[in-house]
Amino acid sequence: MSSNAPRHIRLTSHPEPQAHRWPLRWAAPTAAERGPVIGSVTRPADRNVIGTHGGSYSLYRALAVSAGTLSPLQRPDLANTQPVTDIGPYPQWSEPGKIVSLDPWGHVVGEAFGDAIGEGIDIRPTIAITKARLNMAELNALIEAGSLQPDGRVLHRGGDVSVTKAAIDPVWWLPGIAERFGTSEHELRRTLFEQTAGMYPELVTRPDLAVFLPPVGGITVYIFGEPHDLANRKVPLTCRVHDECNGSDVFGSDICTCRPYLIQGIEESIRSAQDGGVGLVVYNRKEGRALGEVTKFLVYNARKRQEGGDQAATYFERTECVAGVQDARFQQLMPDVLHWLGITKIHRLISMSNMKYEAMVDQGIDIGERVPIPADRIPLDASVEMEAKKAAGYFAPDAPTEAELARTIGRPMDSM
Amino acid sequence: MSSNAPRHIRLTSHPEPQAHRWPLRWAAPTAAERGPVIGSVTRPADRNVIGTHGGSYSLYRALAVSAGTLSPLQRPDLANTQPVTDIGPYPQWSEPGKIVSLDPWGHVVGEAFGDAIGEGIDIRPTIAITKARLNMAELNALIEAGSLQPDGRVLHRGGDVSVTKAAIDPVWWLPGIAERFGTSEHELRRTLFEQTAGMYPELVTRPDLAVFLPPVGGITVYIFGEPHDLANRKVPLTCRVHDECNGSDVFGSDICTCRPYLIQGIEESIRSAQDGGVGLVVYNRKEGRALGEVTKFLVYNARKRQEGGDQAATYFERTECVAGVQDARFQQLMPDVLHWLGITKIHRLISMSNMKYEAMVDQGIDIGERVPIPADRIPLDASVEMEAKKAAGYFAPDAPTEAELARTIGRPMDSM
Repeated sequence: MSSNAPRHIRLTSHPEPQAHRWPLRWAAPTAAERGPVIGSVTRPADRNVIGTHGGSYSLYRALAVSAGTLSPLQRPDLANTQPVTDIGPYPQWSEPGKIVSLDPWGHVVGEAFGDAIGEGIDIRPTIAITKARLNMAELNALIEAGSLQPDGRVLHRGGDVSVTKAAIDPVWWLPGIAERFGTSEHELRRTLFEQTAGMYPELVTRPDLAVFLPPVGGITVYIFGEPHDLANRKVPLTCRVHDECNGSDVFGSDICTCRPYLIQGIEESIRSAQDGGVGLVVYNRKEGRALGEVTKFLVYNARKRQEGGDQAATYFERTECVAGVQDARFQQLMPDVLHWLGITKIHRLISMSNMKYEAMVDQGIDIGERVPIPADRIPLDASVEMEAKKAAGYFAPDAPTEAELARTIGRPMDSM
Repeated sequence: MSSNAPRHIRLTSHPEPQAHRWPLRWAAPTAAERGPVIGSVTRPADRNVIGTHGGSYSLYRALAVSAGTLSPLQRPDLANTQPVTDIGPYPQWSEPGKIVSLDPWGHVVGEAFGDAIGEGIDIRPTIAITKARLNMAELNALIEAGSLQPDGRVLHRGGDVSVTKAAIDPVWWLPGIAERFGTSEHELRRTLFEQTAGMYPELVTRPDLAVFLPPVGGITVYIFGEPHDLANRKVPLTCRVHDECNGSDVFGSDICTCRPYLIQGIEESIRSAQDGGVGLVVYNRKEGRALGEVTKFLVYNARKRQEGGDQAATYFERTECVAGVQDARFQQLMPDVLHWLGITKIHRLISMSNMKYEAMVDQGIDIGERVPIPADRIPLDASVEMEAKKAAGYFAPDAPTEAELARTIGRPMDSM
């Protein structure tokens, strides 16, 4: 541990004397009026939020400090890290209640609060925007089959795809989160505290701090074509909002449609950008319906072993038995990132999810066509999930009957 | 919120009267002597750890309770969720200091503590083991090219791969973690508390609680072939230990070798299992060197924009400027999962990382051959990372000279 580490434990449950210097006025029209989000641990007196930067990764920073490889007083050198493209400001940024789970000014802190940073205030970006080239085996196969054509701008010969991408850490404005979930801020704070077994007592002791940097996963946004076009209703926008599924997205597990539907989202986004439109894939870190992978694998076992086998008819019931809830992804917060990008209309939504669709419509975003996954892209063992979801309200031209539902049985455990 | 929710806020910073009923004796030889890990929020009196189950996902459970869709008193119905295969017990489970970051009994709680669970104690698995079929475009291409042959057991016609997989949530035994990082338990607890801006005051107020369920990502293990063979030194074991990189693992970004090396690990694991051996891929949720994706994208921008372009010679420097540390993955804890699986020898390690290698050797695991990624699988823009790592000690037959290092320049930002 560095020798200049503070030697007394700082209590966080009582206001620091200077906390008033950096008030946050959520949804104010400019960055200056809104004020900077300060989650620094190097100058606690400046803090105006609960929690700290980097979500879960703050625990790894703590290990780095423990191991003596990171100074506890370290601050980022932000030279050359600024966004590769402008995003906003858009009117949605200051419409009350539109954005409650991320900081719309999170990518421009160097520009908006440069003077304060120069003065020594530890203000950090919660959003980073860069460019990348992607190369995916499935897209290469589509090029080879003649189904995708390189154009030299979006899709290159050899299969490279040019994208602009943004990583977004969660920044929760607690009054807005409570409203979105139909509860009071007081109840929300108390439940967050109790259900995490006491993480951040400030949730209940510091009602003056309304912003929380929760240690949960963030969002990655992939933009195909011109980022500014996302906010232009006249430019056709193809969009997939995808929730993380490591087992399929990375390892190609055939029990769900996650990676095939993600590929379809990327493919259609490329086509849209090639045809004068724009494409967007939003990737939310919400593994296993935001219940985590341990719960997910427990549910797989319960599904495969139940009497009658892995049935579409009992698909949601098994998750509810193990987790107490069918799904914890809560699409209510998902449209925030669309508001951040200035989106008011999605011309083609690559999703069958009624929850995603309704969350977008509730937030005032117009949706044109909804595009199902083609039957020939549904992996063998994923029909159980697909039929169960259709029966539960997923958008589909052909919702199954109860008899069909009962007949849809997945692969038994002993032939995995 | 359910009507039977407790109406007073429970303080967690003072011992509950019955806490002594479930003492934890870490590394005890049997599950009964070790005692159950109880992170329940439904009966706080039984708790014997700091934090709660599900890592980060406890915050989503809290949102589910806030939204009224999950009872705050819910407990899992574990019927049919038990592991699909035995793992252990192995001697490593009770050797002091061998396993400090997961609960080796985490998958057998239903069996080991069934009586207590029946009595109403809320004991939950921290590990789940299931089976799966994988299907990946890259493997299908290798089959088509004749480089992989289906055998009907490990690799099926049509490209399906049979695996056993386990999801593992972190369970940190703080005295052991401190020892692994060369610090005192007192300093570790204090640093975890301070660097997270005050997450879990019990870290500093409750020295009697030595186990912490941190809200960080876990581990997924993919086993190719017979799981019991992992612990048999005579059965050839091919292994890749892979740290998460969403940009490459899922989206195929060409700035690093992550997905190509992961595919190689899977491919070689399949070959090993087909040849009478066994294969293992360990996937650690440590995005962006455990610094997170926002930091990663900031570093990409700083690399591409620095004077002289994206150079291998300054590769590590750029991360250190932004994050204060080159890498926060800390392979010191990584071998725990290998001990859990009973592994004492890895015949073929599909990795060039000196940090992973040294961590394994330090933990008494014998390593045979180390297998580099073939040059023709390194994506175009990833040579910067690869040459920088070789120069820094990565295993390679051909470490670059300083002049070669200076000549390795990546794609400039304006031609992304």
